[in-house]
Amino acid sequence: MESLQQRAQTLTEALPYLRRFRGSTIVIKYGGAAMVDADLRADVISDIVLLTLVGVQPVLVHGGGPEISEMMNRLGKKASFVEGLRVTDAETAEIAEMVLVGKTNQAIVTEACHQGARAIGLSGKDADLMVAKKAGSRQTKTHSKKAIDLGHVGEVEKVNPEVLETLAASGYLPVIAPIGVGPKGETFNINADHAAASIAVALKAEKLILLTDAPGVLADRSDPSSLVSELSASKAKRMISTKQIDAGMIPKVRACLEARSGGVEGCHIIDGRLSHALLMELFTDVGIGTMVR
Amino acid sequence: MESLQQRAQTLTEALPYLRRFRGSTIVIKYGGAAMVDADLRADVISDIVLLTLVGVQPVLVHGGGPEISEMMNRLGKKASFVEGLRVTDAETAEIAEMVLVGKTNQAIVTEACHQGARAIGLSGKDADLMVAKKAGSRQTKTHSKKAIDLGHVGEVEKVNPEVLETLAASGYLPVIAPIGVGPKGETFNINADHAAASIAVALKAEKLILLTDAPGVLADRSDPSSLVSELSASKAKRMISTKQIDAGMIPKVRACLEARSGGVEGCHIIDGRLSHALLMELFTDVGIGTMVR
Amino acid sequence: MESLQQRAQTLTEALPYLRRFRGSTIVIKYGGAAMVDADLRADVISDIVLLTLVGVQPVLVHGGGPEISEMMNRLGKKASFVEGLRVTDAETAEIAEMVLVGKTNQAIVTEACHQGARAIGLSGKDADLMVAKKAGSRQTKTHSKKAIDLGHVGEVEKVNPEVLETLAASGYLPVIAPIGVGPKGETFNINADHAAASIAVALKAEKLILLTDAPGVLADRSDPSSLVSELSASKAKRMISTKQIDAGMIPKVRACLEARSGGVEGCHIIDGRLSHALLMELFTDVGIGTMVR
Amino acid sequence: MESLQQRAQTLTEALPYLRRFRGSTIVIKYGGAAMVDADLRADVISDIVLLTLVGVQPVLVHGGGPEISEMMNRLGKKASFVEGLRVTDAETAEIAEMVLVGKTNQAIVTEACHQGARAIGLSGKDADLMVAKKAGSRQTKTHSKKAIDLGHVGEVEKVNPEVLETLAASGYLPVIAPIGVGPKGETFNINADHAAASIAVALKAEKLILLTDAPGVLADRSDPSSLVSELSASKAKRMISTKQIDAGMIPKVRACLEARSGGVEGCHIIDGRLSHALLMELFTDVGIGTMVR
Amino acid sequence: MESLQQRAQTLTEALPYLRRFRGSTIVIKYGGAAMVDADLRADVISDIVLLTLVGVQPVLVHGGGPEISEMMNRLGKKASFVEGLRVTDAETAEIAEMVLVGKTNQAIVTEACHQGARAIGLSGKDADLMVAKKAGSRQTKTHSKKAIDLGHVGEVEKVNPEVLETLAASGYLPVIAPIGVGPKGETFNINADHAAASIAVALKAEKLILLTDAPGVLADRSDPSSLVSELSASKAKRMISTKQIDAGMIPKVRACLEARSGGVEGCHIIDGRLSHALLMELFTDVGIGTMVR
Amino acid sequence: MESLQQRAQTLTEALPYLRRFRGSTIVIKYGGAAMVDADLRADVISDIVLLTLVGVQPVLVHGGGPEISEMMNRLGKKASFVEGLRVTDAETAEIAEMVLVGKTNQAIVTEACHQGARAIGLSGKDADLMVAKKAGSRQTKTHSKKAIDLGHVGEVEKVNPEVLETLAASGYLPVIAPIGVGPKGETFNINADHAAASIAVALKAEKLILLTDAPGVLADRSDPSSLVSELSASKAKRMISTKQIDAGMIPKVRACLEARSGGVEGCHIIDGRLSHALLMELFTDVGIGTMVR
Repeated sequence: MESLQQRAQTLTEALPYLRRFRGSTIVIKYGGAAMVDADLRADVISDIVLLTLVGVQPVLVHGGGPEISEMMNRLGKKASFVEGLRVTDAETAEIAEMVLVGKTNQAIVTEACHQGARAIGLSGKDADLMVAKKAGSRQTKTHSKKAIDLGHVGEVEKVNPEVLETLAASGYLPVIAPIGVGPKGETFNINADHAAASIAVALKAEKLILLTDAPGVLADRSDPSSLVSELSASKAKRMISTKQIDAGMIPKVRACLEARSGGVEGCHIIDGRLSHALLMELFTDVGIGTMVR
Repeated sequence: MESLQQRAQTLTEALPYLRRFRGSTIVIKYGGAAMVDADLRADVISDIVLLTLVGVQPVLVHGGGPEISEMMNRLGKKASFVEGLRVTDAETAEIAEMVLVGKTNQAIVTEACHQGARAIGLSGKDADLMVAKKAGSRQTKTHSKKAIDLGHVGEVEKVNPEVLETLAASGYLPVIAPIGVGPKGETFNINADHAAASIAVALKAEKLILLTDAPGVLADRSDPSSLVSELSASKAKRMISTKQIDAGMIPKVRACLEARSGGVEGCHIIDGRLSHALLMELFTDVGIGTMVR
Repeated sequence: MESLQQRAQTLTEALPYLRRFRGSTIVIKYGGAAMVDADLRADVISDIVLLTLVGVQPVLVHGGGPEISEMMNRLGKKASFVEGLRVTDAETAEIAEMVLVGKTNQAIVTEACHQGARAIGLSGKDADLMVAKKAGSRQTKTHSKKAIDLGHVGEVEKVNPEVLETLAASGYLPVIAPIGVGPKGETFNINADHAAASIAVALKAEKLILLTDAPGVLADRSDPSSLVSELSASKAKRMISTKQIDAGMIPKVRACLEARSGGVEGCHIIDGRLSHALLMELFTDVGIGTMVR
Repeated sequence: MESLQQRAQTLTEALPYLRRFRGSTIVIKYGGAAMVDADLRADVISDIVLLTLVGVQPVLVHGGGPEISEMMNRLGKKASFVEGLRVTDAETAEIAEMVLVGKTNQAIVTEACHQGARAIGLSGKDADLMVAKKAGSRQTKTHSKKAIDLGHVGEVEKVNPEVLETLAASGYLPVIAPIGVGPKGETFNINADHAAASIAVALKAEKLILLTDAPGVLADRSDPSSLVSELSASKAKRMISTKQIDAGMIPKVRACLEARSGGVEGCHIIDGRLSHALLMELFTDVGIGTMVR
Repeated sequence: MESLQQRAQTLTEALPYLRRFRGSTIVIKYGGAAMVDADLRADVISDIVLLTLVGVQPVLVHGGGPEISEMMNRLGKKASFVEGLRVTDAETAEIAEMVLVGKTNQAIVTEACHQGARAIGLSGKDADLMVAKKAGSRQTKTHSKKAIDLGHVGEVEKVNPEVLETLAASGYLPVIAPIGVGPKGETFNINADHAAASIAVALKAEKLILLTDAPGVLADRSDPSSLVSELSASKAKRMISTKQIDAGMIPKVRACLEARSGGVEGCHIIDGRLSHALLMELFTDVGIGTMVR
Repeated sequence: MESLQQRAQTLTEALPYLRRFRGSTIVIKYGGAAMVDADLRADVISDIVLLTLVGVQPVLVHGGGPEISEMMNRLGKKASFVEGLRVTDAETAEIAEMVLVGKTNQAIVTEACHQGARAIGLSGKDADLMVAKKAGSRQTKTHSKKAIDLGHVGEVEKVNPEVLETLAASGYLPVIAPIGVGPKGETFNINADHAAASIAVALKAEKLILLTDAPGVLADRSDPSSLVSELSASKAKRMISTKQIDAGMIPKVRACLEARSGGVEGCHIIDGRLSHALLMELFTDVGIGTMVR
């Protein structure tokens, strides 16, 4: 009986957060360990289904995981990198699309439906959800005079969020693969953090939450306990320029800055390796990870 | 961090129940200790607010508590009983209405609003919500030849639930005082258990939950551990006729039987003295108290 | 036959007024003789029911009448006045709430339902309809250095009119007791004229009509035939400062000025002692009483 | 003041009828003196506008009046009768349509709009409102072996009431000329009483009211005081077969019988020569004229 | 098979135009040969029905044709002209109304319904659709000092388009006769081109299309091949002042200029003598006739 | 000009079909040459976009094409057949899903969006659109005693069409890959003809149209001119049992029979190799191919 009561007590403590987030849209970038590890995966989906049941409208944007590389290997396709940047030729883009949309996305949708959500898989091509253009070339150190063409990597130019609104109004959970469509129907790979930020802005979301494989932004990269709980835009930019933030974290911080300047008030980078990280972020005062403000 | 995670885990365990009760109407008879004790009172209201936030539509019917007697005392009005039955003359009915509607009901509404619900107090007179007629006279032992007229005590003849539906559709929480209105506008006191059952039937509620000051129906009245978890209609009637069920519990069991035969599937008598009794009943498989089937 | 025809003729003469007020909201402060006298009472309610049937949306705010004082007497509670102002301690506020909500309001609701309206009784506590704060202290003549604390007397700080709109949209008649709720759930007595004005402003009502026990504002207080039909704001203020308007009339004129400056175009003080005063005001060109402009 | 009060009193006496007819559809056949006499005409329209303002949905079907014959005269067209029945050749039908739709109907619409209604003129051709077929030939006395072809006189075969419902839902007043359309777009003259009955049945109207130039059905044709207030179907048929009902009244009684058997509960033949006959019928208990039951 | 395929191909070529006009309102002035010639008439109606089926909302305004003069002749009414302008006395206005509303309009409605549209005939009197005032007098050459009063000829003062919107929302096709209503219910003849322009402006129509008996505006009146495809406002005014545009075309050009300055972007004068002129204008890039910009 | 007119004429001839199919749902199985050939593909999509613009609701179900086999080859996966039936192991099912959903479906969606539709790609896993179970084993000739397990090949057990209805109501074009989901989230390959039939039944579609690489069902397989235009159910069954219908056509005929018995009135097998086959079938009286009745 006591444990029943404790359980009820815990539910009760969620009240202020339920009140606060009821009716709001929360865009979640889903990737890393949380997508690979079967238990974490089940937990994340369960958290999201819970959110739908208490009146929150979550929108999921997932990344790629190791499945793209694996498929490229199986197809004897060599990845080509120039100074650490992956060059995405037409065939690579096609494989990425096939795996992201036909495998990764379907798996998430299936798991979510299995747990009781009414999930719908989408890519940026569905109803021109994410119209993209070729991403700008990158100047590199060694070839500073020559920009490198990364091929079919795109930037989101325009989000058409109507289909998300239609689905949300009927209680569906959108699960989005980060594929953009060009003006001629071309396939563009989009960085999933950037895709999530663009969608959060277009939906006027209350929050953008990025699940990562780190505790958040660290003051000292070598010290996991040096978590920066709140990060101002100016400090974020300074930390990027001084390379205090490591390479893998930069696109996440940039996505948060982009969403912030687009009007999304709560932008969070949290540790997807923790079970129920989403609920911990949303349903406690302190939250976890780094909030970019 | 661990406790945050445990807390998240608990929320997750509520998932199947959230799914099950989402969108359903639950009529709650609120009375006894749960209404008198300040802490319990806050807990009950908090449970109900939680229900509204997770998509359940609760409807509250409250009883009288000691405030009526207290006011009668203050007004120098003597309670008159015949063989244990209170005789309600016109003045008594008027005092009861004034206290129930103007004091008890207002207090519950205020507390619920304070906790974030949008509560609306109603009596059976509002939009003729509960049309009542004079309750039948009672044969008594000593005067077996003579029926006793209990005065302004009523039985619900017709519930007009439209106002409850209008309010529910806009997210309001109805809080109902057990006063009925006669064909000429007379005031009738209605037993709150009976009122709750009538309203549950009219609303085609999923559940009727009666909060009492006992663990439920006991097989052996003197043994609190002899709880009858499930009670069939036939057994209930037998236990009433053999006086195995004590006097105070009889109207509750009768209300459950009435609701059952009116189509309400889940009728529960639970212990309102337990903190968060409602959540314990709704959000666990075993439930608590007695279910009348 | 002739009288039938005359009757039909009269109905026809109401046409321009029906056209004019159709669909508009009219807030009526109901008090004084019109509330005490049984015949007048029936007439007022009948007028209001008629308004609902011809497409007007009336909202009723009632005052207290002699019932509060009567109940205080019965409870042995002495009224305390300082320089003519009633000091409302916590107990007095509670008694007032109980009588206003549980007795006066219920009686009006019952009568209105009996005459065919679908009336719903409300207080300012229902869904936080009238959020109030402590009214400012009053400087008095004799103690000009010392302000007097009137206790639980409140001023309306915020009206949340959504519940009125919800009810109106479904054809219900709101009947409102002048009780406000403080930030901590405290009970505040609100002057009913002031409450009606606040609600008229919040609802963007077409008209505010105050029923009084006088023909309206008089140019010469001792001459009932000296009715001021139209009263400008500036003249009203002048007449108040020169005490040309008597004490009882001042809060009514002030309520009208408040409603006027809040955008309510038609603010009327009319004689509730006349049978069908409301219809006479609304359904004739000349109207009756004083219109504050 | 007294007369104001009397006026208010009269409005109040209309209450039970307002309640009763609110939201109901009433089909009115408008013809005879009430259409020719300018004052009566203004009164009838005013009654109808009043009905729209108090929540009744009137539908007007008008007859022809003397304008058709007048126009035929002016066009040098001789009316042709066989045993008292007008033979309607194609040209006659065309003239009738032109006058009914382009003159009579327009005049009623203009007057109604002038009095504040939002009237829309329609004929049975608009959106195929009244699909008609050639009326059966009539056996005549002298030529009992030979049926007489009356030409373009039609019977209503099907009413498509959707456009009336669309207009009613937006508060328009339909004014209908009794012209039917054949399967090939032919023009058919329809008896206006019969047209009104057909439309009343299709709209499931609460009442059908026929304005005539007589007090109603008379027990003794020569005695205007011998009004039959209520007429059963069987008695009506008997009175027709025994020629107790005169020729002009027969189509009206038949229209009532048709509407009755189609489910219209209140079918009335009233005296259109009385000012405000409609209001007198609707807003009194006794009513006027003959009710066919 | 080949011809089937060609047919399908043609349908496909309509795609960009279907996309472009879907959901837009197009006001069509219907007159001249297209209204008189039976085949052309059937074609125009068929084009309009097609438009309704592909999601365009056409609104038809028709002119008079020879039927008015014919009826005046038959009624022995002499047309009176002063310097080529028809003087419209009260009787003439009445005849015009009768013929336009009761004959011409009904004929178009019947044909449109026969072809599957749900057409509703209206005049400017229905629900005060076109409120008119007396048109200004005209100065004439010979009587330059004396203005000529043209009688019941009106200018549109105010369009009340609500009834058109109500009908359009339910899929009806409005067919409008150019009769205006004065403030006292007077009948005014309105030039149909002007009426169509007024209605196009009030409806914020995408296009106004005037069907005429000429290829459009000609650069050289004597050379039918000298069509001016696009005509600027300034050039139009110059051509009118230099009399390069002939008298019959002037009101059409003026109607286009009026609609243009009222915000209607596409104003076209096209040749109604061509079969399917409407579809040719709407469903090709080049269009036909003159577009006034 | 003439050709413009001819074009307009052709549009006009489509009128009766526009009228007939307006508002109806048409499920189209899309496969074979029409999916492989770039020109045919553009034509089919264009036909479908046209249908959406004229008020028809098409739903597209596509098959696999050669892309699955190609990908299996590239991945070094050998197809395994037993007596001509493909055995689908788990890996094969996964590859099929990936290619169908991530490549074929995306390509159709992209083309449709490019042509102006608002296409949304779906698989049977999205919101549990097609719940499937393992297809029954097949008895083979040589191993008549032993049934062969075909692995992950499924039969549709339940269609949940709500998401299709939600999307259709907002004007989206659903494009469905024939993948079913098992009770545990398993992937099942579904025959696309069968999937289309199931969806047509669930949506109560007006028509099911299967695009094939043959003119339809032939009376004499070797004679392409021996097309059977109408095929009764009984004849279809006879022709299957006598092997008059060749193997490739059998599942198509079976899908039609299944849809017929599920209430879909028009079931057609047409030649997808013909340009605009869909429009030819829908917009002519004779139609093309075989209609199963």
